[in-house]
Amino acid sequence: MSRWQPNARGRLRQAAFELYGERGFDQTTVAQIAERAGLTERTFYRHFTDKREVVFSGEVHRVLVETVADAPASMTAIEAVTAALGAAGAVLDERRELTRRRQAVIAANPGLQEREQIKYATLADDLAEALRGRGVEPTPAHLAADAGVAVFRAAFERWIDEHEHRDFGRIVRDTLDELAEVISG
Amino acid sequence: MSRWQPNARGRLRQAAFELYGERGFDQTTVAQIAERAGLTERTFYRHFTDKREVVFSGEVHRVLVETVADAPASMTAIEAVTAALGAAGAVLDERRELTRRRQAVIAANPGLQEREQIKYATLADDLAEALRGRGVEPTPAHLAADAGVAVFRAAFERWIDEHEHRDFGRIVRDTLDELAEVISG
Repeated sequence: MSRWQPNARGRLRQAAFELYGERGFDQTTVAQIAERAGLTERTFYRHFTDKREVVFSGEVHRVLVETVADAPASMTAIEAVTAALGAAGAVLDERRELTRRRQAVIAANPGLQEREQIKYATLADDLAEALRGRGVEPTPAHLAADAGVAVFRAAFERWIDEHEHRDFGRIVRDTLDELAEVISG
Repeated sequence: MSRWQPNARGRLRQAAFELYGERGFDQTTVAQIAERAGLTERTFYRHFTDKREVVFSGEVHRVLVETVADAPASMTAIEAVTAALGAAGAVLDERRELTRRRQAVIAANPGLQEREQIKYATLADDLAEALRGRGVEPTPAHLAADAGVAVFRAAFERWIDEHEHRDFGRIVRDTLDELAEVISG
């Protein structure tokens, strides 16, 4: 029924973030995103449920949760979480500029900021669930998951800075060391 | 203009949680809460902005943030956060039954659950800000704040269980030890 569009998803995402930056998220329509990408609205809806899903597509979330679930059984909870942060970093490092643009869009919109907080809470729950699936007890599972999200957020905050050139995995390792130091007081 | 009502706030809160439990949060009106408490709607609005604010009155939040801000300068970030968790625990231990009822209301309502996640995110930000005010650098401030909220949540989860009889401060200390263990792998 429709022709295959090479990298339609990537073109739609690129167009969406351009428009969110230029006009604001609330003022941008799906029709405008499709037009900017040179695609149809129907193609947009084949890739995303709505314009908010372009911002929260959940790819990093999936990588984090799957890596914890699939980590070797010999790994402790925090080792599995650390491996997951490294895997997520590989995804992020490939799209540093796009991710900076994305964060600027979220920072400009209180509704998106609330949504981002909810997404982080859901991520912590899903990571805890994945750890439970590895046989970790409920409290340590939640603590390791929350520690992982705390390290992710602090590392992300540094990584997104335009003066920061270390890769995500490196920043994660340094931040995890800092967390250990902070907790030991 | 109006007579002073002894413990109006407490009576309204008690009535609200009874009704939220009996009828559901969405189905309860402010008029019903006031009637159950034997007070007027006007009195309700002198104490709460709306029926959701009865659930999220922010008293524990205030105690946590103020205790961090006012902790002796000699305390490290995690010591100030631990002191705050102890102070919040004193408030919680006084209202264990009411808090159990409150959590059951939140658990039954997805909108309130989202609001609770946002409140925890705001708490983490406010604790980090209070630590920044003590001269703690941004990353350790966020890590100590996030660790504090993680410990609070895990301790709260245990404390709210009807078979749990330890006080909140005791559970916090045990949970903090567990977090240190989890992070050291």
